[in-house]
Amino acid sequence: DISGTQSFNKMRKESRLSHWICWIVAVTALFFLGFIIGKAPHGELFLNYDDKNGKLVDRGKSQNRKLNCCPNRKFTRLPHLAGTEQNLKYAEQIKKEWLEFGLDSVSLVPYDVLLSYPNKSQPNYISICDDLGNEVFNTSLAEPIPQGYEDVSNIVPPYSAFSAKGQPQGDLVYVNYGRTEDFFQLEREMGINVTGKIVIVRYGKIFRGNKVKNAMLAGAKGIIMFSDPADYWAADVEPYPDGWNLPGGGAQRGNVLNLNGAGDPLTPGYPAKEYTYRFSLDEGVGLPKIPVHPIGFHDAIHLLKNMGGRIPPNNWKGALNVSYRIGPGFTDDFKSQKVRMNIHTNNQVTRIYNVIGKIRGALEPDRYVILGGHRDAWVFGGIDPMSGAAVLHETARSAGSLLKKGWRPRRTIIFASWDAEEFGLLGSTEWAEDNARLLQERAVAYINADSAIEGMYTLRVDCTPSLHTLAYDITKQVSLLAHTTHLKLIIHINLKLSSLISKLGSGSDFEAYFIRLGIAAGRARYTKNRVRNRYSSYPVYHSVYETFEIVERFYDPSFRRLRAVAQVRGGLIFMLADSKLLPLDVNEYADSLGKYAQSIAEVAQKHPEQMELYKVSFDSLFSAVQNFSAAARDFYARLQTLHTEDPLQLRVVNDQLMYLERAFIDPLGLPGRPFYRHVIFAPSSHNKYAGESFPGIYDALFDIENSADPEKAWQEVKRQISIAAFMVHAAAMTLTPPA
Amino acid sequence: DISGTQSFNKMRKESRLSHWICWIVAVTALFFLGFIIGKAPHGELFLNYDDKNGKLVDRGKSQNRKLNCCPNRKFTRLPHLAGTEQNLKYAEQIKKEWLEFGLDSVSLVPYDVLLSYPNKSQPNYISICDDLGNEVFNTSLAEPIPQGYEDVSNIVPPYSAFSAKGQPQGDLVYVNYGRTEDFFQLEREMGINVTGKIVIVRYGKIFRGNKVKNAMLAGAKGIIMFSDPADYWAADVEPYPDGWNLPGGGAQRGNVLNLNGAGDPLTPGYPAKEYTYRFSLDEGVGLPKIPVHPIGFHDAIHLLKNMGGRIPPNNWKGALNVSYRIGPGFTDDFKSQKVRMNIHTNNQVTRIYNVIGKIRGALEPDRYVILGGHRDAWVFGGIDPMSGAAVLHETARSAGSLLKKGWRPRRTIIFASWDAEEFGLLGSTEWAEDNARLLQERAVAYINADSAIEGMYTLRVDCTPSLHTLAYDITKQVSLLAHTTHLKLIIHINLKLSSLISKLGSGSDFEAYFIRLGIAAGRARYTKNRVRNRYSSYPVYHSVYETFEIVERFYDPSFRRLRAVAQVRGGLIFMLADSKLLPLDVNEYADSLGKYAQSIAEVAQKHPEQMELYKVSFDSLFSAVQNFSAAARDFYARLQTLHTEDPLQLRVVNDQLMYLERAFIDPLGLPGRPFYRHVIFAPSSHNKYAGESFPGIYDALFDIENSADPEKAWQEVKRQISIAAFMVHAAAMTLTPPA
Repeated sequence: DISGTQSFNKMRKESRLSHWICWIVAVTALFFLGFIIGKAPHGELFLNYDDKNGKLVDRGKSQNRKLNCCPNRKFTRLPHLAGTEQNLKYAEQIKKEWLEFGLDSVSLVPYDVLLSYPNKSQPNYISICDDLGNEVFNTSLAEPIPQGYEDVSNIVPPYSAFSAKGQPQGDLVYVNYGRTEDFFQLEREMGINVTGKIVIVRYGKIFRGNKVKNAMLAGAKGIIMFSDPADYWAADVEPYPDGWNLPGGGAQRGNVLNLNGAGDPLTPGYPAKEYTYRFSLDEGVGLPKIPVHPIGFHDAIHLLKNMGGRIPPNNWKGALNVSYRIGPGFTDDFKSQKVRMNIHTNNQVTRIYNVIGKIRGALEPDRYVILGGHRDAWVFGGIDPMSGAAVLHETARSAGSLLKKGWRPRRTIIFASWDAEEFGLLGSTEWAEDNARLLQERAVAYINADSAIEGMYTLRVDCTPSLHTLAYDITKQVSLLAHTTHLKLIIHINLKLSSLISKLGSGSDFEAYFIRLGIAAGRARYTKNRVRNRYSSYPVYHSVYETFEIVERFYDPSFRRLRAVAQVRGGLIFMLADSKLLPLDVNEYADSLGKYAQSIAEVAQKHPEQMELYKVSFDSLFSAVQNFSAAARDFYARLQTLHTEDPLQLRVVNDQLMYLERAFIDPLGLPGRPFYRHVIFAPSSHNKYAGESFPGIYDALFDIENSADPEKAWQEVKRQISIAAFMVHAAAMTLTPPA
Repeated sequence: DISGTQSFNKMRKESRLSHWICWIVAVTALFFLGFIIGKAPHGELFLNYDDKNGKLVDRGKSQNRKLNCCPNRKFTRLPHLAGTEQNLKYAEQIKKEWLEFGLDSVSLVPYDVLLSYPNKSQPNYISICDDLGNEVFNTSLAEPIPQGYEDVSNIVPPYSAFSAKGQPQGDLVYVNYGRTEDFFQLEREMGINVTGKIVIVRYGKIFRGNKVKNAMLAGAKGIIMFSDPADYWAADVEPYPDGWNLPGGGAQRGNVLNLNGAGDPLTPGYPAKEYTYRFSLDEGVGLPKIPVHPIGFHDAIHLLKNMGGRIPPNNWKGALNVSYRIGPGFTDDFKSQKVRMNIHTNNQVTRIYNVIGKIRGALEPDRYVILGGHRDAWVFGGIDPMSGAAVLHETARSAGSLLKKGWRPRRTIIFASWDAEEFGLLGSTEWAEDNARLLQERAVAYINADSAIEGMYTLRVDCTPSLHTLAYDITKQVSLLAHTTHLKLIIHINLKLSSLISKLGSGSDFEAYFIRLGIAAGRARYTKNRVRNRYSSYPVYHSVYETFEIVERFYDPSFRRLRAVAQVRGGLIFMLADSKLLPLDVNEYADSLGKYAQSIAEVAQKHPEQMELYKVSFDSLFSAVQNFSAAARDFYARLQTLHTEDPLQLRVVNDQLMYLERAFIDPLGLPGRPFYRHVIFAPSSHNKYAGESFPGIYDALFDIENSADPEKAWQEVKRQISIAAFMVHAAAMTLTPPA
């Protein structure tokens, strides 16, 4: 067991990411070559080992191979925030190296998007002011710099990107995590109105942009977010640099937009090119109208410790030595003190750069398999994103070295190093908008390459159901390879795949590809034990402490976790690009739809009287799912008699496989979210990070609780069931014989 | 010269549509077989004659061939309004015959859509009432029945489908054609406000639904539309049955919806299936909120003759012996009289049936070429739609007989007999919604088969630019064939194709396929000389006088015009379905885009100061068009070296050709018109019949005139130019090498 709290004991100083990076090249290349298509009897196994070798040999042990190919350490040396010169330099370097690796073409693709930076001459901070307006306490202006980086300039202090400017002053109200249910509890059970107040919430559970939206809707005039040790400390772990917990002076940067997939706030729906019309800042999508600021827990203690008002329920209490009183405002002793936010962050249209590399497909150049991950980082990006960017880089290197050996994939592979992910998935979304027509006709799959590690416990895959089988098979092989290296994998052969592999939510660059365009998508990373470790994301997330060293010393001293992630991501790409028959499993989609339909119907069944009263039935959806399942089975049966030597017959079937995911796209979008168009999967309206199935129905049911007009709310549930049923029927049609 | 006024002299009693129908089978079949693909040196000629024969022999002269295959006369014997039993019977009969012809599959596809019928027990009419409320004049309840049809039941009287119910009473205001500019002139130059008035407008110039919308926006509480002889009489022509002019007792039926492509008003965006959620009538799309009624000119004289108020400008005067005063209300002598509309028309959800027949493609079953036209008629449908439905039916027969001889097209051909076109293109739009995913991935082209004749002067083609060359080549061959039969064709070799062939507007079933889904589309029919004949559509349009006899006796006694139309429509279908390389011309699209960009920029140049003030430039659009033209030229150059024997290479290129039209689709739709998604072509917002190029820019420029906030209006112009430029760039990308 090498779960989180113990793994750092196994740290090995001699092993470096750069070394791992060196031999992953050879390993992944051999690993990928080892795959061939096998016709499996039960459709669940598309992969076999190399026939000649009988089984795959793990070359991973040959760690003493020396290759002069280790550039990745340097991508975490300097801060490379989106829109900065340094991030452009890294882009140029990646371009240069990808060309050297042997990719057919590599280019920088610029967009001019709205970014947001603190004002260098007017720092952001929060004060406690006395009745004369004197600042009796100010929050810190920066995080303590980690050792070895003292001379680095251009470290952006913690801030909430796209915060409104302003200096609101008032009483604090503490609203737990700032979730929809927290605000309901505050308003309905505690009877506290936050209109004109400044809310303070702890980070965690949901996407910070949702917290800000909830605060705005509740009428707050500012919102402060802090990292509570309850959510950002693992037990028995020291704060960095002695361990991987968040120091008290650390804080979480992050954007606080509510884009719902729009990309650049000023050019929703269209790429942010030079000639593109831009909305004014007033008209921009998802920009908060109130000031927002993040703080660490050392500062939070000062704001919280004198708060008055009622004692909160236990599940509102964090781990600080304060009482977590709700407010509004301070106790009697301090009631003349007010809190003032001082926020001077500027929005500005700034040029960003994606790096796009291509390997032309030998037989089907117009079929695209995409591996994309971001390059921009809040500071050094030791974990987010460079642990993933390294995997992307080395997969490109692997592919290049295979090309030099004479290999060329059947389909085109596109490698993408996205910019400005941290500012709302901007680089990936603008490129998706720019290339939407090509992608919707030609893209087979999108695999995401954000952070490769966010924990030490196990490999975890989130993907669309049609990728379940491929992901499972690849992961199983990685697991076999990894057996001797003590990697823990979540593979349990006897469980249903859909219970091992999670749904995609949002919060990374696959969003536009999957949720807007309907391209089969997946992600893989090493993660914590979600049952045992309740902290959110990972403790140093988006802080200055995300260094190369935290990975090397704590998260993956052997670099075997990163290698496993690279093998899974790379394996997906190579199999999707080179298999004659696309390794997409329609029966898995059918199984998952059945599960999702059952699950959403159960949510509705909590209101049996109203279901009866408004004649709400899920029969049409269940019937559609049955129809889909039958179509999937028939399709699979026909696959068995396919003449794969007939290029047109094969193409027809592969097109059916490719376009299955596309069939779930509704150009009208989900209600109020025109860029979330996938009727089966979308982020929750209440937490962007969470993927919901049948999101239209889910949201409509959620609104039942709050609607002043239940008749209307239930009509919307019925409408959403009808849309879902139709979309499932329509998708089933795409699997029937084309004429 | 057999132009309209003389052609009926050439009537030949012995020649019947049914006879023509018999030999068109053989002719078209041979004609189609005669086409083969030729590689032309300059890309403008995809067609050649059969190599073996050197040139095509016109078998059309062998009129004495006898075949027992003439069912079409009977499709005009009985009224077959959408939603009636008779129209279902015809559907069943068509299904039976298509199966007999040898199509691979034929099915009836039902939808439950909102239709609208007069109340049988409470007829609709308009009264003039005296001050005691007595009806001193009532309009007629029905048209005089033409000879030979006296015993026919179920002739629906003239009405405006989807009119609101109601009995508004008030003063009349005459507003010419009820166009946007007419209402502007009324309000701004004449200072007349129609709030609370009933407006009376003449039919013609624009789609009637636009007149109703304009009246509603102006505040009218009812609208009466009449057929003025100035618009519905040709010179020197007798009214039917002695000629083809509209009798004074005839009136034009028609729907008065403003659907903007939504299809069934209660299920916008989704097919109207049994389980589909339906909006309430209040929420339905495009339903007028005021009563509407159509009358003939005998009745119109009574309403107009005593009108008071100012004398209208000359271009507001029709051809009736009245002064066409504007009102409001009657002259002093009659000023106590009011007009009352009595409208009891009911909306009701009703089952309709499309007939869908398929011929499976031999090599690319997943590529669809569609020939579709409607079957439902207001009464007999002698012209609209059965002159077109006959062409559809005989093309299916031709294809069936070729199949029996062993032929099978490369691609799948779909024949569609649509229902409920007259109620807002409902059958075709619901099927497009139902099959949207299949169509957007697989449809190569849609050819429309509505009325084949609306005049006697010339063949006329409206189509997307990429079909210009094919349409031209086929038409030229038909012209050569037709030379000895004195057909006049609009082919003039030395003119630019785009000046011979018009843009598609709307008003028939191609709409959803072209404007919503972006499928290359075209239509062909025989039409009047539009320069010389100023009457709108054709005089008896949508009246009871659209009989089989009016075609046989006046419009096409030789049935040669119908045959030419069949040859063009059928030729398009067969070439698109069977050519190895798709006969779509990307250079023609480039030329047309250039022309459209020039033309829309000229409209804007009418405001040079404002262009300067608001920094409005068309440079980005011109640059995009240049880019597109270069991409098209390069694409064409690569075609010359294509290995057409390599099935995958051919498929890749054909996919680029097929998806070019799709590239112009913006899922966000045009502003306020979510189902009009084609950025290059859409119906005018002010007249559904007219196709505008760059409709987003066009509408934004139109609004300049009326906006209270010119800054905002010009910002919208700039936004639309930016969108258009992007879409043209994006389309150009689809023509570049795929990797």
